[in-house]
Amino acid sequence: MALKFDILKTSGKSRRGQLHTKHGTINTPAFMPVGTCGTVKAMMPESVAATGAEILLGNTYHLMLRPGADLVEKMGGLHKFMNWNKPILTDSGGFQVMSLSGLRKIGEDGVKFSSHIDGKKYFLTPEESIKIQHKLDSNITMCFDECVKLPASHDVVKKSMEMSMRWAKRSKEAFVDRDGYGIFGIQQGGDYEDLRRYSAEKLKEIGFDGYAIGGLAVGEGQETMFKVLDYAPQMLPEDKPRYLMGVGRPDDIVGAVLRGVDMFDCVMPTRSGRTSQAFTHLGTINIRNARHKEDYRPLEEGCDCPLCTNYSRAYIHHLQKANEVLAVMLLTWHNIRYYQRLMEGLRGAIENDTLSNFVEQFYADQQKGDIEELV
Amino acid sequence: MALKFDILKTSGKSRRGQLHTKHGTINTPAFMPVGTCGTVKAMMPESVAATGAEILLGNTYHLMLRPGADLVEKMGGLHKFMNWNKPILTDSGGFQVMSLSGLRKIGEDGVKFSSHIDGKKYFLTPEESIKIQHKLDSNITMCFDECVKLPASHDVVKKSMEMSMRWAKRSKEAFVDRDGYGIFGIQQGGDYEDLRRYSAEKLKEIGFDGYAIGGLAVGEGQETMFKVLDYAPQMLPEDKPRYLMGVGRPDDIVGAVLRGVDMFDCVMPTRSGRTSQAFTHLGTINIRNARHKEDYRPLEEGCDCPLCTNYSRAYIHHLQKANEVLAVMLLTWHNIRYYQRLMEGLRGAIENDTLSNFVEQFYADQQKGDIEELV
Repeated sequence: MALKFDILKTSGKSRRGQLHTKHGTINTPAFMPVGTCGTVKAMMPESVAATGAEILLGNTYHLMLRPGADLVEKMGGLHKFMNWNKPILTDSGGFQVMSLSGLRKIGEDGVKFSSHIDGKKYFLTPEESIKIQHKLDSNITMCFDECVKLPASHDVVKKSMEMSMRWAKRSKEAFVDRDGYGIFGIQQGGDYEDLRRYSAEKLKEIGFDGYAIGGLAVGEGQETMFKVLDYAPQMLPEDKPRYLMGVGRPDDIVGAVLRGVDMFDCVMPTRSGRTSQAFTHLGTINIRNARHKEDYRPLEEGCDCPLCTNYSRAYIHHLQKANEVLAVMLLTWHNIRYYQRLMEGLRGAIENDTLSNFVEQFYADQQKGDIEELV
Repeated sequence: MALKFDILKTSGKSRRGQLHTKHGTINTPAFMPVGTCGTVKAMMPESVAATGAEILLGNTYHLMLRPGADLVEKMGGLHKFMNWNKPILTDSGGFQVMSLSGLRKIGEDGVKFSSHIDGKKYFLTPEESIKIQHKLDSNITMCFDECVKLPASHDVVKKSMEMSMRWAKRSKEAFVDRDGYGIFGIQQGGDYEDLRRYSAEKLKEIGFDGYAIGGLAVGEGQETMFKVLDYAPQMLPEDKPRYLMGVGRPDDIVGAVLRGVDMFDCVMPTRSGRTSQAFTHLGTINIRNARHKEDYRPLEEGCDCPLCTNYSRAYIHHLQKANEVLAVMLLTWHNIRYYQRLMEGLRGAIENDTLSNFVEQFYADQQKGDIEELV
């Protein structure tokens, strides 16, 4: 196999694993910070590594438009270009084309669209997406697929999923197998169990290094998402990593790990760092809130990130009010570190058979909240 | 004395010194990065220290408006608030009140002005400025003064300078002497030699820990500035540090060190980091220029900053085009490091009696330019 995956320990449906790539090993359950344009916004790559992150996600759509896959290839690939020597997963561009680009036309062959940057026209097909991801030197290539917003009718989801499965086959055929690199299929089917099963079967027929659960976190709410996750992961091969795309909030991740998911990505920690929102074990804190103005305390007691180690809430509040870049830098760092601490906690709890205690404590803390937020 | 200054070596008018404060020693000639609002924009303080900077400048005007001197004092002073444990110099607020604030009225007592942030009214006097700087726990307090834009008539400059000298006396009287802390007087007098001499005599009568040369870099051009610097520094006590305020470009600094100046501050390296301009020994480079699009090379050959060590020009160009914060972070770091390398070079050259060679090489390199910029 092009990517080796070891499951070290299980606890209920939850798995503690290691995924080995050419650029290093990823301990799962893993959270991947998002580096859309070849940078995790407001972070030095060595700082991202210092948070404990072992893999980044890059966006094919953004990188193909700017600076272009040919340039990245010429510069020695995305790892070298952005100075990140650990594993990289790239999405296929499919989801972003649907949500970001201008005028687009979807056909059996692929998607015609115009760039949101300069209006330039592109035609993205499964073959082209895989080729771009190859040029980027992505360790984990994702199949090109279509993703339907929920709620949607059985008929709409079925048609879309069937095309995605045909595209999955074309993606796999276009992928150049190399040691330490792999390609993941993406299960679709919305919140319809029969379609999820059909999709899983199709993907297994083709055969992939890992399997993503796509088409969730697209407006359906956590309850529906968890209902799907009650059955969808178990339809996928047990010996391969399972990746829930675009998820999510800390409690989404905990719920998904309990249901057998191994990998996650989300812009939440980085985007929130730019909007003053901090994640902590006591829930979210908005540092712009006036109650922090004279608060000596660290943002989160017990956190080992530079923000919590070296600064008061009062200082971060001040930086936010003054629109200082350092506020974004520190909050982003804290949020990514919080997510990594959460994943470390989940991994340790699976290893030590203490997962139910861990999860109970997690929900109790989150519910407790940052007390004075309520005042 | 409250601040001890040692001159280790001289070379012509140039001096290699050490200024000792409660928070550490500053090797001179020294360049102070500007941390206006309690942060050097887009830099972690540990990164600022890693560039070799041994002292920061904080702006009294900005800090008194937000978050307020009382809050900073309550939080343990500016060093602790912003996590910078090395020396800090604060300006008096005088210059910023003139250039930034709204409606203002200058009288013998002080300056009435309204905040540029919320229009709130303030009255800043020499006594109040010194008190604020005390609350900030600044190692080097600056006298409150008025600064006239050049060109200006002898009469206008004289009247303003005389008031500044009366304010200098009041500032000194308001200053609370403490070990490892000091207050600097500010010589005024525009480009009039007689006024500069009068001002210097007045300041020496009062007695300060160091002497700044104020009222330059305010529109007079390098030629006029150097003419003033041909005589002004020598009017000040030989055994005290001399600080040229708000200067400047690398060649301004080299010219001023040759004329006996020991300390500098300027927003140039940090501000330029936010506008894509990089300082190098081969002159300035604008990284947005299309010629860098596919350039493998580091920004500056021989520079040891993270930007030059880990990235290609192509990558920084890409970050700039994509408006990524990391571009600002890396360019700011590089620029501050360039300024510190320049100061290290000057200090070494004075120590080793190779200053004229150093300066010759400096101008030759700057003139050569980053060759392909011309293509």
